[in-house]
Amino acid sequence: MGLDAHVLVLGGRRSGKSRFAERLVLGSGLRPVYLATATAGDEEMAARIAMHRAHRGEAWRTLETSLLLPDALAGAATAGSAVLVDCLTLWLANLMEAGLDIGNETTALIAALEAAAGPVVIVSNDVGGGIVPDNALARRYADVHGILNQTVAAAVGRVVLMTAGLPLLLKPSTQGTVTL
Amino acid sequence: MGLDAHVLVLGGRRSGKSRFAERLVLGSGLRPVYLATATAGDEEMAARIAMHRAHRGEAWRTLETSLLLPDALAGAATAGSAVLVDCLTLWLANLMEAGLDIGNETTALIAALEAAAGPVVIVSNDVGGGIVPDNALARRYADVHGILNQTVAAAVGRVVLMTAGLPLLLKPSTQGTVTL
Amino acid sequence: MGLDAHVLVLGGRRSGKSRFAERLVLGSGLRPVYLATATAGDEEMAARIAMHRAHRGEAWRTLETSLLLPDALAGAATAGSAVLVDCLTLWLANLMEAGLDIGNETTALIAALEAAAGPVVIVSNDVGGGIVPDNALARRYADVHGILNQTVAAAVGRVVLMTAGLPLLLKPSTQGTVTL
Repeated sequence: MGLDAHVLVLGGRRSGKSRFAERLVLGSGLRPVYLATATAGDEEMAARIAMHRAHRGEAWRTLETSLLLPDALAGAATAGSAVLVDCLTLWLANLMEAGLDIGNETTALIAALEAAAGPVVIVSNDVGGGIVPDNALARRYADVHGILNQTVAAAVGRVVLMTAGLPLLLKPSTQGTVTL
Repeated sequence: MGLDAHVLVLGGRRSGKSRFAERLVLGSGLRPVYLATATAGDEEMAARIAMHRAHRGEAWRTLETSLLLPDALAGAATAGSAVLVDCLTLWLANLMEAGLDIGNETTALIAALEAAAGPVVIVSNDVGGGIVPDNALARRYADVHGILNQTVAAAVGRVVLMTAGLPLLLKPSTQGTVTL
Repeated sequence: MGLDAHVLVLGGRRSGKSRFAERLVLGSGLRPVYLATATAGDEEMAARIAMHRAHRGEAWRTLETSLLLPDALAGAATAGSAVLVDCLTLWLANLMEAGLDIGNETTALIAALEAAAGPVVIVSNDVGGGIVPDNALARRYADVHGILNQTVAAAVGRVVLMTAGLPLLLKPSTQGTVTL
């Protein structure tokens, strides 16, 4: 399909990202595949996963991967399917915890998007706002996450920013170019 | 008036939300009513309240409610008046501290908006950005607040996001629908 | 040139603000001047400064000022030059640490922009998002920073908000006026 077929859905916590991405995938008429990067590491997360799964209902084929997102995406994005990746934020946290090279993994992700035979909708948090975190790990996570978001945003055809459940199209821009 | 008459003004701390909402209400030519949810629990908050009140000046009728926003709104939103609710963020904090049911209160708020005889401008913080807070209460607050914002945003006719004093219209969207 | 010539580039951490601002300045065909407010107070910051400098390359004339931004800008914004100020956020932190009057400094900054003989692109963080910080200094910093951003945004002709490397034009608005 090429990278232009794909959509990056950005937003803060509880901004309606996943819901919007689900509607995009279901509205396509293609076979919906849910590719989850969440792992039920604690009770709070297990509850969120169960709630999301119950909400999505029966239509979806669900796959889970905590680290091997590029491989899982290569297998899932078949012709006739539309894949929802939910989300880059947890995948990145998993990669950092496992000590993997983020640059290599990002390159593999972009390659999997390039090779996908169907459209992919990718959910990711926009974590760069607010006051600079006062611990070094949180700062590094925010930096690495920002670069990952920029890289994916530059590669895909459409980027949407969610606020209070409302989408704002960041790419393609509906505005003219800014020059001095 | 119906829910379409109302405006939700979102934004971060010191984004110019209250100022923009005040100008909206004053520009309507209707009788301005200020419905405050802040309580002067500490000196910092008391100073903010006094500063806001001095800034607004004489034109406004001011009502205060820490918990009973739906009731207060039902009483304040009379024909010929325009009500500014400032803000949902403190109301929600008050509700959570009092242990009230947020879902019930949200339903009551939407009903009060539906029944209002004049337009209502509602100020609320967008708190879902940045790194995920590292304490469970802050996470729960961000989650509940995000859902409250989504619910109100879905109900009212117009939603504005403020950044550095500048408004961005999120609803009605000026962009086409995004599809896969 | 007047204040309309200048551009404020807002965004979160790692949103692509500096990169976008650099492209604006380089695309102008004017002599690029980089006016840095960062001071290498610790190793992390020294590494960021060195990385930024290496990335910008040879074309730029680089000036550094931790506190005297208005004076430095007055000297740097000569006819035929385009100045990149990177960034207001660190300048403000430096001012607060030095105990200087933020209102006076803001007034001096606006006067320097007014008097500039060439266009100025100003990078600043949007720090008002997320949960309210739980320490008083961070809250005060967020408040003062928000007011500084509002003041500069009101003065300059164009304001851009960056998300994941993508610009959104906040000013001039491409939307109609919101009224009740």
